[in-house]
Amino acid sequence: MTKINQITAYLEHEKTDAAVFSDPVSINYLTGFYSDPHERQMFLFVYPHQEPLLFVPALEADRAASILNFQVVGYVDSENPWQKIKNTLPAAPFRKIAVEFDNLILTKYHGLRTVFEGAEFTNLTPLINRLRLIKSADEIQKMLIAGQYADKAVNIGFDSISLDKTETDIIAQIDFAIKREGYEMSFETMVLTGDNAANPHGIPGAHTIENNALLLFDLGCMVNGYASDMTRTVAVGQPDQFKKEIYQLTLEAQQAALDFIKPGVTAHEVDRAARQVIEKAGYGEYFNHRLGHGIGMDVHEFPSIMEGNDLVIEEGMCFSVEPGIYIPGKVGVRIEDCGHVTKNGFELFTESSKDLLYFE
Amino acid sequence: MTKINQITAYLEHEKTDAAVFSDPVSINYLTGFYSDPHERQMFLFVYPHQEPLLFVPALEADRAASILNFQVVGYVDSENPWQKIKNTLPAAPFRKIAVEFDNLILTKYHGLRTVFEGAEFTNLTPLINRLRLIKSADEIQKMLIAGQYADKAVNIGFDSISLDKTETDIIAQIDFAIKREGYEMSFETMVLTGDNAANPHGIPGAHTIENNALLLFDLGCMVNGYASDMTRTVAVGQPDQFKKEIYQLTLEAQQAALDFIKPGVTAHEVDRAARQVIEKAGYGEYFNHRLGHGIGMDVHEFPSIMEGNDLVIEEGMCFSVEPGIYIPGKVGVRIEDCGHVTKNGFELFTESSKDLLYFE
Repeated sequence: MTKINQITAYLEHEKTDAAVFSDPVSINYLTGFYSDPHERQMFLFVYPHQEPLLFVPALEADRAASILNFQVVGYVDSENPWQKIKNTLPAAPFRKIAVEFDNLILTKYHGLRTVFEGAEFTNLTPLINRLRLIKSADEIQKMLIAGQYADKAVNIGFDSISLDKTETDIIAQIDFAIKREGYEMSFETMVLTGDNAANPHGIPGAHTIENNALLLFDLGCMVNGYASDMTRTVAVGQPDQFKKEIYQLTLEAQQAALDFIKPGVTAHEVDRAARQVIEKAGYGEYFNHRLGHGIGMDVHEFPSIMEGNDLVIEEGMCFSVEPGIYIPGKVGVRIEDCGHVTKNGFELFTESSKDLLYFE
Repeated sequence: MTKINQITAYLEHEKTDAAVFSDPVSINYLTGFYSDPHERQMFLFVYPHQEPLLFVPALEADRAASILNFQVVGYVDSENPWQKIKNTLPAAPFRKIAVEFDNLILTKYHGLRTVFEGAEFTNLTPLINRLRLIKSADEIQKMLIAGQYADKAVNIGFDSISLDKTETDIIAQIDFAIKREGYEMSFETMVLTGDNAANPHGIPGAHTIENNALLLFDLGCMVNGYASDMTRTVAVGQPDQFKKEIYQLTLEAQQAALDFIKPGVTAHEVDRAARQVIEKAGYGEYFNHRLGHGIGMDVHEFPSIMEGNDLVIEEGMCFSVEPGIYIPGKVGVRIEDCGHVTKNGFELFTESSKDLLYFE
């Protein structure tokens, strides 16, 4: 069953007259066509008994038509997009319309309400999240490749470590190398030295790499539409014993979660598996974020691996496992890998060593 | 009057009980604090007669508190953010709430409706667009600096032109150089060679730079929270006469608009000033996008310089002027500068030459 057919089946089952996708990533996931329309309008209309239709800004219409095997309608900036959408609709009555609550902004929602006057609007987000949640073998293969580029990127970062460089210098080296390969980073690369790493979302800048301190790399690559995301923390010079202990504790917490993951456990339990290691050591308050996030075509997607989430883990789910301990002014460590749930466990997309590495 | 005070005055005037900002860029504009909460919740609450309050994910709370001089409330992933927001609200009745229709997704809207049960929701987007539309002298100074980096970036691109390089190679050089300076590009840099430039939103890749063809650069830098955006098209080798004529026509169209802009004319008229030059020459159908877009903290913001937009141009507005002619399989040219409207005209943020430059 193609992905579009899964939507059609849903519409039939839910007696819904149309699904309207507004998220460029959802549209890419379903059709293989990607475009960011910015403040313009782009919607994929899927009907239960008729061909889908893509509505796009005119300047993307030709490219879309060359990729898609169904109708593409373009509009120019001087046209009223809502009126034009209304003109393209099939004759069927539209009583129930499914839209992406997690993506649709109110302005577009109001526009669609003028198109589908009087219709009830239901939420497509759970369906698309569910579809995207379980990755196919083909998708997992793509995530593995994205992971290999993350491994490559972090190693380029390691090779660039030097006490006369800044965080930004190293970031530029990493991003340059990946761009030369023809790929983008999947988010802004983070290289954080010393105290700056003690902020879980610290901002890199013109800070010179500190000696006898830890250095944190958080990065990922976007390869053929799929994202990777990994974090490594390494030693520069000889950090004190306390920093090394915090590193080992973080690693132990990550390993506890990685060993625990298999189909049937819950997201809450996975988070707890890592968190209790840190809590038992007395540092629970310094691990102030969830253990992980889903990953796929977006760096952050469903599911959230966190306390209170009773979602049952299934084969094919992909997510990050990234415990961190951040003690302001003292030390910051995070270790992160993403992987996919297998029949019996969890396999990582990234392979870089997690022994504490030392650089000069 | 501070920016927050302008919101407060609006709320009093409109008898509105709270403004709830959800766009990270709006929040940065109003407060100087920037964070992207991804799928988490971040809202700035502004009340008519009480201190504002920022609600953020816990891991950003300390940094926010260090920047802001009003209350910051953080929440952790295991808490229900809507319940926590409800607990922070002052005792006042909430009958009318203003939110950003152009940013608020339905899921967050539904969350806010549980917080402000029974309240009427009105649209803040026009107000914030209006505030952001007219840049202060300080903002224009920042845009000038962002423009200088765009000039620098495009010149790095020119220096990298070589027939043994690909589009991606040149992009990597540009982005690397700007990153070394500590800044990000404001969007994905585009370098498009030959036929690829004939697609107005072509995608750069492993295409080797063509000889006797045009080469298009579209790029910008994000410097201290403000964006630049510029496009230059240059010659590699000796493009044929037709390509040169299309270049000159595009330049003439841009100059016509630049000469025309001053307070009192409309956005529609500015678009027409450039478009009619291209139409008269018989290439109107190949200029298939609006003339320009507003720019500021976002690369694309209000206003749209396009046919049908009767907005009256005022001093302090900042936007792009970017006519393009794209004849598939033959030639693609775009020339773009951003600038600000002065008392009597329009001053550019970018200075790079627009004579057709030749490279080997």
